[in-house]
Amino acid sequence: MTRFALTIEFDGTPFVGLQRQTTGPSVQQAIEEAAERVTGETVTLHSAGRTDTGVHALAMRSHFDLEKDITPFRLMEALNAHLRPDLIAITHCETVADDWHARFSCIGRSYVYRIANRRAPLTLDLHRAWQVAPELDEKAMHRAAQALVGLHDFTTFRSVQCQAKDPVKTLDRLDVERDGEEVRIHAAARSFLHHQVRSMVGCLALVGMGRWREDQLAKALEAKDRQALGLNAPPHGLYFVEAIYPADA
Amino acid sequence: MTRFALTIEFDGTPFVGLQRQTTGPSVQQAIEEAAERVTGETVTLHSAGRTDTGVHALAMRSHFDLEKDITPFRLMEALNAHLRPDLIAITHCETVADDWHARFSCIGRSYVYRIANRRAPLTLDLHRAWQVAPELDEKAMHRAAQALVGLHDFTTFRSVQCQAKDPVKTLDRLDVERDGEEVRIHAAARSFLHHQVRSMVGCLALVGMGRWREDQLAKALEAKDRQALGLNAPPHGLYFVEAIYPADA
Repeated sequence: MTRFALTIEFDGTPFVGLQRQTTGPSVQQAIEEAAERVTGETVTLHSAGRTDTGVHALAMRSHFDLEKDITPFRLMEALNAHLRPDLIAITHCETVADDWHARFSCIGRSYVYRIANRRAPLTLDLHRAWQVAPELDEKAMHRAAQALVGLHDFTTFRSVQCQAKDPVKTLDRLDVERDGEEVRIHAAARSFLHHQVRSMVGCLALVGMGRWREDQLAKALEAKDRQALGLNAPPHGLYFVEAIYPADA
Repeated sequence: MTRFALTIEFDGTPFVGLQRQTTGPSVQQAIEEAAERVTGETVTLHSAGRTDTGVHALAMRSHFDLEKDITPFRLMEALNAHLRPDLIAITHCETVADDWHARFSCIGRSYVYRIANRRAPLTLDLHRAWQVAPELDEKAMHRAAQALVGLHDFTTFRSVQCQAKDPVKTLDRLDVERDGEEVRIHAAARSFLHHQVRSMVGCLALVGMGRWREDQLAKALEAKDRQALGLNAPPHGLYFVEAIYPADA
């Protein structure tokens, strides 16, 4: 048995998410089916994170096990050939130790959220960014965001469907920057709750529009109550950027 | 009569190009029809440049004339509403002097060409960049490109369908830079011949792959012969970036 670690990029628009669900096509199903066509083996894909419908990935990390003798390069090429025309690409493939686990070995995850801060409808960035028409004060957003960095109970910013046992998490980074008409929010933590990044971004957008004062974000956090959430940002602006493992650190 | 200048962004994938053609849907036709629905007037859109099928624009400049009394803001909003679901957006609209002409007043045009220098198929950048698998030497490309800057007869880099009277043009800028796996080529000139940017990019890619020596680009230019062209890069990596007018300079 050989364990293969994959780096995966995908356009999340047509999928119910990364993980298999009964409600529609998933990235996991597409890759498992491609692997079966390539090797004849039934595999289970394990991944660093879960993603919602419409959320994209630049470099998701995943793994599965094979009995077949195949080089990582040939496996990657064959998977990419069989994944077409789905917008899923294996950008890297390597063999790893049998105890390396894409989810359980992962010690850091990061996301970026793209806001197109403009009035005009999106063309080239349709389904790739959240269009927000009112002018955003990205400096106020960044200042407010710092209240969420650190060890907190993130119940306010957690989906009612979230299955994590503990709402207490350490947020390592929440930075807001502007590049022309694009406002980007960078978030990093060991792990996130379900909808946490989108919920934080939604409230930051309220701050940026001036609909929330900067200190309202901290108050929402302290409330530890989903009802205190101002806005959950839509999924199509969110990208899974990186998974970090001990050997990378 | 009032002349309205528009700034236009579009995804060129589904269009035969910016300008009207009998062979399929064009950006010009979509905007003229939207303008007619908004105003009841038949307009003719004049633009700074022409683009091929699949070529994108970040900020094309165009104009048309109206009898109707309407503010630029209301016109822009109404056009954007009527252009849906086409991936064309009016990002700016203003009134200009009657002798301002999007094409004839334009004194500078610039393009960027995006190469995704990677082996894996494209997902989020499908139809948005040219995928080139062999590793490109962007520094060699940049050095070679400088032989094309300045006043030259660009016959080698001109489509056989090009209708310009004179193949002699001054190329102001041809810069090649790398940003991770993306290689970008920036081109600026008062005006370009048909297929000039794509033809220059195609030959630069040959240099980057090591299939052409750096001095072969200069030799191809000197040949003044379309047969000396090495490769015409595909349209979907090309973006019209900016049109410059005397008042902007």
